[in-house]
Amino acid sequence: MDNRQIVLKSRPVGIPQPAHFELKVSPAPQIGEGEFLVENHYLSVDPAQRGYVNDENNYAPPVPIGAVMRAMAVAQVIESRHPDYRLGDYLYGWFGWQDYCVGTPASVLRRVIPAQAPLSAGAGLLGINGLTAHLALHDIGQPKVGETVLVTAAAGAVGSIVGQLVQQAGARAVAVVGSDDKGRQCIAEYGYAAFVNYRQPAGGTLDAALRAACPQGVHVFFDNTGGEIADVVFGQMALFGRVIQCGTMSIASWVPTPVGPRRDREILTRRLRVEGFVIFDHLERYDDTAAALAQMLLERRLRYVEDISDEIADAPQALVEVYSGRNRGKRLIRLR
Amino acid sequence: MDNRQIVLKSRPVGIPQPAHFELKVSPAPQIGEGEFLVENHYLSVDPAQRGYVNDENNYAPPVPIGAVMRAMAVAQVIESRHPDYRLGDYLYGWFGWQDYCVGTPASVLRRVIPAQAPLSAGAGLLGINGLTAHLALHDIGQPKVGETVLVTAAAGAVGSIVGQLVQQAGARAVAVVGSDDKGRQCIAEYGYAAFVNYRQPAGGTLDAALRAACPQGVHVFFDNTGGEIADVVFGQMALFGRVIQCGTMSIASWVPTPVGPRRDREILTRRLRVEGFVIFDHLERYDDTAAALAQMLLERRLRYVEDISDEIADAPQALVEVYSGRNRGKRLIRLR
Repeated sequence: MDNRQIVLKSRPVGIPQPAHFELKVSPAPQIGEGEFLVENHYLSVDPAQRGYVNDENNYAPPVPIGAVMRAMAVAQVIESRHPDYRLGDYLYGWFGWQDYCVGTPASVLRRVIPAQAPLSAGAGLLGINGLTAHLALHDIGQPKVGETVLVTAAAGAVGSIVGQLVQQAGARAVAVVGSDDKGRQCIAEYGYAAFVNYRQPAGGTLDAALRAACPQGVHVFFDNTGGEIADVVFGQMALFGRVIQCGTMSIASWVPTPVGPRRDREILTRRLRVEGFVIFDHLERYDDTAAALAQMLLERRLRYVEDISDEIADAPQALVEVYSGRNRGKRLIRLR
Repeated sequence: MDNRQIVLKSRPVGIPQPAHFELKVSPAPQIGEGEFLVENHYLSVDPAQRGYVNDENNYAPPVPIGAVMRAMAVAQVIESRHPDYRLGDYLYGWFGWQDYCVGTPASVLRRVIPAQAPLSAGAGLLGINGLTAHLALHDIGQPKVGETVLVTAAAGAVGSIVGQLVQQAGARAVAVVGSDDKGRQCIAEYGYAAFVNYRQPAGGTLDAALRAACPQGVHVFFDNTGGEIADVVFGQMALFGRVIQCGTMSIASWVPTPVGPRRDREILTRRLRVEGFVIFDHLERYDDTAAALAQMLLERRLRYVEDISDEIADAPQALVEVYSGRNRGKRLIRLR
């Protein structure tokens, strides 16, 4: 049984490019006692993967050169020597950009329940993207009825869920996107009340466009990008505003540390709360949160969009596209 | 009855200097119905006053040119046409850098209880400095036993209280100060376990000195200064660390916005919570908090240091000295 693997060939500085990876084929691995073998169905493509390969500050050590690319996937157990993981079980976990992976309980993020939603949703809406949207918005953002919630990368895998959850909470979601087309999609499909195109802002400047879209200021800033957009947003935060630091997609490299306007004064005088959010801190809440999202899906109160390729060799290019904002919704590679 | 007043003569950019003020003498004001007249005893000199006169982002509109300098003071009611404020009552409030002030209920921050502590303490330990130390440390910092709490301007009016409260909480306080002399005072008198001299750091760099003083990282950063010291501290924050943004004393001017290393990545990967604290949001808790601090004082579990002048004309220079770190403890002007 051949195992196709996307392997890290060299260490990128900044956004990883296809040249940093190569496709290798080797025999599928053997499992030992207490292990199980999974067959991947959907490989996840996530902005966080930049951090997995860069030799920079992150929340996990970098992927070694020559190793399979770290990635989450939805997979099925096809062989098992662990009593809790049975043939046919579907799992969402750290199974890498490859066909087959030896699993242990530590590699599992959650069990995928096929009755809840289509299998692919296990990697997006019911995976880290939907879970991040739900937990970060409510834990840190705590939007109140009538408040304005501004979301960067609003048409992405997380942002497309956030807008809908904001709307359900009775707050007003405003999307920051890279094209009018995406903005219109945010309004039509993702619960957003307005959008700002940061590349071609209405009114000529991002500042003016944001002021027009958020006349009461920004009560909650759900930030997936950081950088220059965030610089402008900080100047429009409402008193006691909450900033969810969920990602820094707009910063190509953190070595050397880029500079930008100091935000201390805004944080102080506006009494902001700025907080970092990493979904992997909240494992014990995945199942309940996923069940809540699945229920909304069942009741047709939530929709999700996927952007799926069928070639494992396309995974590195898909990551580049996520960074350049060329994806719509959750980016996945379907293997079977 | 003559009223000496320190009046704002011109609008400073950055730190106000004596040349921006002048001493004027005019007749003491008359009160109307519902008002009362106070005689100031202790005028407060506070870093926050820079923000009151600059035409920059702040939490209150700037003092107009020609108006008496906005300041807090401990004062006594000497005439009253308000039933709740009687002759002889001591009050802490917005009475300005002057001898006499017309008060209304809105100008009062709290009633000073002479039995609790010496009158002057009403402007420092039991005034905004002690209240800030207590509420910001416990509300935002939430230090746990054994954690490290790093404090900038540690020998100042707020920092000198914070160190002692940290020690009482079973955590480890580390002082950032501008001289070894102040550092030794922090250890001897203010409950600090160690200090870092940011002007002449042991080990040659601030980074090395901080690492030596905080080997487990910084769990709580009580920041009164912002700027370059904070830049280094962010790189040494522990996972899930809390940053109390309490002041930005090290930044001379916010126009134009100064630049510095972006902190987004540290906030995200270390899951920091950075929060602005302004004491004036917590008026309803002043009395209880002051009572708790007064009780510690009574039990000799808390000490405070004051740096007192007797000339009203010295107030502007005293403010300059607070900014340059030349004060020790709470800076006050005693009028009677």
